[in-house]
Amino acid sequence: MALQLRSLISKSGQLEVSLASVPVPAPGPDEVLIRIEGSPINPSDLGLLFGAADMTTAKASGTPERPVVTATVPEGAALRAMTARLDESMPVGNEGAGVVVEAGSSPAAQALLGKTVAAIGGAMYAQYRAVPVAQTLLLPEGATAVDGASSFVNPLTALGMVETMRREGHKALVHTAAASNLGQMLNRICMKDGIALVNIVRKPEQVDLLKGMGAKYICDSSAPTFLQDLTGALAETGATIAFDATGGGKLGGQILGCMEAAINRTAKEYSRYGSATHKQVYLYGGLDMRPTEFVRNFGMAWGMGGWLLFPFLNKIGPAAAEVLKQRVASELKTTFASHYSKEISLAEVLDLGTIAVYNQRATGTKYLINPAKGS
Amino acid sequence: MALQLRSLISKSGQLEVSLASVPVPAPGPDEVLIRIEGSPINPSDLGLLFGAADMTTAKASGTPERPVVTATVPEGAALRAMTARLDESMPVGNEGAGVVVEAGSSPAAQALLGKTVAAIGGAMYAQYRAVPVAQTLLLPEGATAVDGASSFVNPLTALGMVETMRREGHKALVHTAAASNLGQMLNRICMKDGIALVNIVRKPEQVDLLKGMGAKYICDSSAPTFLQDLTGALAETGATIAFDATGGGKLGGQILGCMEAAINRTAKEYSRYGSATHKQVYLYGGLDMRPTEFVRNFGMAWGMGGWLLFPFLNKIGPAAAEVLKQRVASELKTTFASHYSKEISLAEVLDLGTIAVYNQRATGTKYLINPAKGS
Repeated sequence: MALQLRSLISKSGQLEVSLASVPVPAPGPDEVLIRIEGSPINPSDLGLLFGAADMTTAKASGTPERPVVTATVPEGAALRAMTARLDESMPVGNEGAGVVVEAGSSPAAQALLGKTVAAIGGAMYAQYRAVPVAQTLLLPEGATAVDGASSFVNPLTALGMVETMRREGHKALVHTAAASNLGQMLNRICMKDGIALVNIVRKPEQVDLLKGMGAKYICDSSAPTFLQDLTGALAETGATIAFDATGGGKLGGQILGCMEAAINRTAKEYSRYGSATHKQVYLYGGLDMRPTEFVRNFGMAWGMGGWLLFPFLNKIGPAAAEVLKQRVASELKTTFASHYSKEISLAEVLDLGTIAVYNQRATGTKYLINPAKGS
Repeated sequence: MALQLRSLISKSGQLEVSLASVPVPAPGPDEVLIRIEGSPINPSDLGLLFGAADMTTAKASGTPERPVVTATVPEGAALRAMTARLDESMPVGNEGAGVVVEAGSSPAAQALLGKTVAAIGGAMYAQYRAVPVAQTLLLPEGATAVDGASSFVNPLTALGMVETMRREGHKALVHTAAASNLGQMLNRICMKDGIALVNIVRKPEQVDLLKGMGAKYICDSSAPTFLQDLTGALAETGATIAFDATGGGKLGGQILGCMEAAINRTAKEYSRYGSATHKQVYLYGGLDMRPTEFVRNFGMAWGMGGWLLFPFLNKIGPAAAEVLKQRVASELKTTFASHYSKEISLAEVLDLGTIAVYNQRATGTKYLINPAKGS
């Protein structure tokens, strides 16, 4: 038997997060069994972990080895949004890494026995996880599970943004929440590939952080000159596509408006429908939980939409996706290095004080779960 | 010399609409000279006619034959949005129809001499207009200039919506401000072609109007049950694309949210990223001048964007566009019939009382300008 973290929301609106004891899975012919030694808490994991629960109502119970956290999901829209998962105990954890301790009969599976691999597929907040070989990535010689724990979500998301930019015909891009782990990674990719990147951050100290990492265009949305700064950077780079992690509030629309203003600096004649250049903002996160709001001051050639890694990978197909994965492996300790402020055990994931830190989703408070660590 | 309506916004923020006396243009080899006898006031024309001026400040001056209307454009964002047209006297009027009174030397131009044609290309609020043959549409035998005055903007926009729906892989569509001239036209196209159309209107009497025209799905956004009604219609029709004339406010987002709810009625398992079905709303107008606002309760597979007729026609190419135009000609008096509440002269366009009516952009107050009519 082995531990697996579970999140359950009952029909009555009660969230319960706990550790379940489950059988160690047996790998199928083309699967490997991984002893997980590192799994990051990504913003996308928090959504599944706590759902729409109001975590200010969180209470601890259980024992030190088997802690339980309960909290209330507000009635109404919040609870309704959870309809499809009610009364289903759900495993959590998008990605992780560890050592292959058992392998199916296929040559591809057997080749991984004893190796350290990264994997994607959910249910990684567990001591053991069996996954198809296709959902793993063999880490390069010398890379540990900690090095490889975040090999999928952030690296492929950052590479996917650059790939989307290229495929949709843009020459430079904008990223918000740019001081995040993902943002720093995207900055390293763009520096390496010679792509102009406009980094939008929310605090002056984040400007310094990115500057220290060699970023050229950094706009602080808390500065009174933000819109002018952004328009200037957009005019200089020609960026007409943005990836916005905040989702809510006015930022997405402001980016479109500044893009239009930057384009119009060199416009030759008046068009009442705005510039003919298509401007695109993808909302790939929801750090800002407010409604999204914009004034339509950017003409008619614009788009806003959701962007998500897996549909993107499906769209480009397995061969193109494999190219991206191999780049991650070969630059794992440089371009795609992740940093964690703390490594915690499965039991510590359920500690109220610890939750209060990692659930902030704040830059610099990224936690790594190590299910092999005793609590 | 002939009369041409002009709109001018000065750097100081003063709008002046007047009638200019301009030389009758001479058609080029592949052009025809049209004596305009009908040109509609479309919402898209009002944007150019009055710009960002505050029409509550409008004042009349000039003579009965040469009236002048002046108004103030508020300083700040409103005036800045007009930058590219400041101090340029602009002709107005997207489309119109009339008799070809002079033709260039090309056989195509000569073939139109004496015929009644519709035309697109701006500057139609004028007694005479020379346009390339490619921008005209020969009206069928027996059709008058009044019948053909609105042959381009509304008919091609409505056909373009259906064509966009097909090309983007949707099977039914949603339209807002559905009781408008354009909306009635779209309803006739969909009934003829057997396409399910969800009509969103703003008043109970518009429900009756569309019902009387055979529309099957009509949702009144002023009804307390609007969101349920809309979700029901979306579930029944499977519509996953919408064309929204209002642009501002919450309607666009509500449509996406109801689409997601309709899809989830039959969802088999919970996905924290929402349904995988792409949901699209195109904002093609701005009847609601408030900011656009939405809560992101529709997963990640969604898009919102601008939609405009001419970029669409460019995208599909001249051959596909010609097919649409020929359909307009052959169904001009049935599917594509337009109705006007009043026919006015060029001078009457500048009458303050008249402006107060047609500038409401309200359903049932569509005016037709007849520049051949004495004032």
